[in-house]
Amino acid sequence: MEKSGCRGFKTAGIQCGIKKNGGHDLGLIYSEVPATVAGVFTRNLVAAAPVKLDRERIKNGVCQAIIVNSGNANCCTGDDGMKKAEKMAQVTAEALGLPAETVCVASTGVIGQPLPIEKIEGNISRLVSALNEDGIGDFSKAILTTDLVMKLVTRTGHADGKAFTITGVAKGSGMIRPDMATMLCFVMTDADIDADRLQKTLLHATERSFNRITVDGDTSTNDTILVLANKQAGVRIDTAEKETLFQTHLTDVLLELAKMVVRDGEGATKLVEIGVVNAQSAEAAHEIANTIANSNLVKTALFGEDANWGRIIAAAGRAGVPIDPDRIDIRFNGIQMVKGGMGCGQALENQVTAVLKQKEFRIEVDLNMGASEASVFTCDFSYDYVKINADYRS
Amino acid sequence: MEKSGCRGFKTAGIQCGIKKNGGHDLGLIYSEVPATVAGVFTRNLVAAAPVKLDRERIKNGVCQAIIVNSGNANCCTGDDGMKKAEKMAQVTAEALGLPAETVCVASTGVIGQPLPIEKIEGNISRLVSALNEDGIGDFSKAILTTDLVMKLVTRTGHADGKAFTITGVAKGSGMIRPDMATMLCFVMTDADIDADRLQKTLLHATERSFNRITVDGDTSTNDTILVLANKQAGVRIDTAEKETLFQTHLTDVLLELAKMVVRDGEGATKLVEIGVVNAQSAEAAHEIANTIANSNLVKTALFGEDANWGRIIAAAGRAGVPIDPDRIDIRFNGIQMVKGGMGCGQALENQVTAVLKQKEFRIEVDLNMGASEASVFTCDFSYDYVKINADYRS
Repeated sequence: MEKSGCRGFKTAGIQCGIKKNGGHDLGLIYSEVPATVAGVFTRNLVAAAPVKLDRERIKNGVCQAIIVNSGNANCCTGDDGMKKAEKMAQVTAEALGLPAETVCVASTGVIGQPLPIEKIEGNISRLVSALNEDGIGDFSKAILTTDLVMKLVTRTGHADGKAFTITGVAKGSGMIRPDMATMLCFVMTDADIDADRLQKTLLHATERSFNRITVDGDTSTNDTILVLANKQAGVRIDTAEKETLFQTHLTDVLLELAKMVVRDGEGATKLVEIGVVNAQSAEAAHEIANTIANSNLVKTALFGEDANWGRIIAAAGRAGVPIDPDRIDIRFNGIQMVKGGMGCGQALENQVTAVLKQKEFRIEVDLNMGASEASVFTCDFSYDYVKINADYRS
Repeated sequence: MEKSGCRGFKTAGIQCGIKKNGGHDLGLIYSEVPATVAGVFTRNLVAAAPVKLDRERIKNGVCQAIIVNSGNANCCTGDDGMKKAEKMAQVTAEALGLPAETVCVASTGVIGQPLPIEKIEGNISRLVSALNEDGIGDFSKAILTTDLVMKLVTRTGHADGKAFTITGVAKGSGMIRPDMATMLCFVMTDADIDADRLQKTLLHATERSFNRITVDGDTSTNDTILVLANKQAGVRIDTAEKETLFQTHLTDVLLELAKMVVRDGEGATKLVEIGVVNAQSAEAAHEIANTIANSNLVKTALFGEDANWGRIIAAAGRAGVPIDPDRIDIRFNGIQMVKGGMGCGQALENQVTAVLKQKEFRIEVDLNMGASEASVFTCDFSYDYVKINADYRS
């Protein structure tokens, strides 16, 4: 039994028959009192029905429940999809005795197939009955698709002599790139924070976490991060200092979840940080880090544990940002393999290969052009990525 | 024995010991008289030494020989690399009795390792002795790396009552995206055409061929297309009409070679044309076609012969170009599977799956927003792509 540790929240996850393989596929987060809400959503112009619904609903700044299904994305489903997303919220609201507009909705799974709403309707009372202070494990299972592991992170902060808790749960392992977020991430906190401040800290934390990871360069149509703050800890985040504290913990929760998503990237065997340093601007650094992190040639070399730095420098060269190849240094966990755009010799290759055999490491590309930096977390690209994605719908 | 069919050209290819596996790795193209030259090169800011050399050399508009090695890209090799590229040209010029500045150079293979120039020097006289009117097959073999097949295309045009021939040979199967070209492509023609006109027609033909293919989204540091025109057919391309004729044939040769490159894409089992029609501009259509053609999720679904159109529409939505998802139609070889952003039903899926089982087909994304279009050729993404690229240097 996992505990969320956040006062006043209950969660549940059950099987309702949407997933072909019969796994958990319907989850619910419920706050005992109306909570402040903030959200970040996909930038893909093709947005799923639940994303369109939530974008409207969070404008009120209040939410008390989130209903989530996996196995069907309810995307490219037209008016029927919008009606079913609304219906999902409505049946949840009725079962919980809440106004429908305080319920948010999320879906993940295959795009373009009608959502079997009757399976959700028929199981909603059972889901509500299952709500539990220790239900976060079941909830976490219910939002997974190709994920292999649950992703759950809790942090506790202290202010005004009291403790507050932030608990985040995420799903996602493919269709992920820095344009936005994992597919789904839900955060609960018992801190007391206004909607505007919550949204601001969420944007800040997202920029430093989910917008800095990539698995395969694709952006999902359903990406959603929702944060609910229900005030039950009695800690009011009402000063700049306390906001910074809250933001630090929130960023920490989201970054840890984001890294868990990359570690669990489809077929991934390694978590690799691509750091670009001494760039002319943070944007330039980010663009280069992204291009390297998304290069299939780099990612397959990582899988092969091959110190093929030529692919890294070639990716940097096509990032669309001015660089001077003859100034570039590259380090693997601090071991310098490239100096001034040229290899440092075969001798070092054994040391670097030892780094590449590790599960997690950092590759640093030093442009020697300025003082800005950025980093992106990526994974390697294995046979299993192909297997998972060639077979996904079958 | 393959014949190039172009009067006044001789070619050769031999083994000189650069490739670890002992295959052909040194090739030579020689024109009996000084030829007009045009060239197109990688846009990657990290450019190999031979690319830097050729960029300068073609400014004179005259070239009589091209020396090419595979197995080593002579890239990220600093001053030493530049000196060795010059040396490659110089020893070739000496062996052929030509001015050094009329020899161009190309290299392909691993980045960042010193070019074993002594192997080229030691074998240059043997290479020159092997020059032959029927040597194009050996030359073609000598420029391959992970390629599985030779890529050779010949077209004959007629003007002024005489025939002229254009023969192209290419290599490339990975590190290819529309930013530029295959890794290496050499074209011989016996037509008589000025350098400016040759460069103009080459740019036009490249835009419609090598800049419309992708294998893995990576741009090589060594991409090179060189065209030599040696006037031996006695057909002077000196009118707009004859220029159009020449350009049509040149485009045809390059497009056929480009498609051969994609068919031979690393691990590829299919050649798929992604057509985007009724866009607001050709640029927008191209951007969307590129994004779909480079999506790993689309490419793995193609490998799995899975009619997962949701991934196609999701890729279109993240291309950074305004679209209206609710207007999108998608057709597979003319069979409409998506109308107004929604699936046309399970019944059609069998027909579409039959299309997906073919070796070559067209996916058309109709934006219903304008009158412009573009298309990009891509391949599927298989286990073997990962295998080839994880093991490449070992």
